Amino acid sequence: MSSSYTNYTNSPCAACKFLRRKCTPDCVFAPYFPPEEPTKFANVHRIFGASNVSKILQEVAPHQREDAVNSLAYEAEARLRDPVYGCVGAISVLQRQVLGLQRELEETNADIMRYASCLGGETTSFCGGQRG
Amino acid sequence: MSSSYTNYTNSPCAACKFLRRKCTPDCVFAPYFPPEEPTKFANVHRIFGASNVSKILQEVAPHQREDAVNSLAYEAEARLRDPVYGCVGAISVLQRQVLGLQRELEETNADIMRYASCLGGETTSFCGGQRG
Repeated sequence: MSSSYTNYTNSPCAACKFLRRKCTPDCVFAPYFPPEEPTKFANVHRIFGASNVSKILQEVAPHQREDAVNSLAYEAEARLRDPVYGCVGAISVLQRQVLGLQRELEETNADIMRYASCLGGETTSFCGGQRG
Repeated sequence: MSSSYTNYTNSPCAACKFLRRKCTPDCVFAPYFPPEEPTKFANVHRIFGASNVSKILQEVAPHQREDAVNSLAYEAEARLRDPVYGCVGAISVLQRQVLGLQRELEETNADIMRYASCLGGETTSFCGGQRG
């Protein structure tokens, strides 16, 4: 996705520019922090620190580094927007949404069972109400 | 929730112990990193760095600092378990779960509408199948 491998001879990557250092051909940040996206590096640096990001990148297989950087950038942005909960806030919202949907689905399935009983010949007040 | 305010004179907090420094009464970490939970600090230090954690704590109102520390600890633990996706992996799983439940609910609601039509007197093949 990133073309910065071909860029670094012309322009330092966003990380090296931010850290005011020479961007060498083996720069671990260059493929994932192109110069045209300076905020992406500034955010992860502010939340995780450049050296922790570099450590994480080195722990991860090369073909997974782009995903690792993108998830770090997502987390950093969420933490800057919400210093108390960061992206854990999104997890809480989604967990509540899942519980709500599960409850709604259970109720709807219970209704289906009742409709099926009516069509099978049952004559409870529910069936009468529906027929009326 | 934490009683470390009363503990620090006896034993340094987990952060000061880890960083081998004197734990003073105004230590920003002490209330949230009691000595009996050394891993909590080690994790956030490894992922965010002590100075970034301290900066985030200082940005946040005192009554929200416990929540901030707990969400940082959650994120750090997730990142140590899954260096590629961290807790963003949980967000993806939950988002897929929400989409699946929404689709299932839509289908179930469509079934309800069909059952209601049958009970209202319609005689489509769906109604016949249910009656048979």
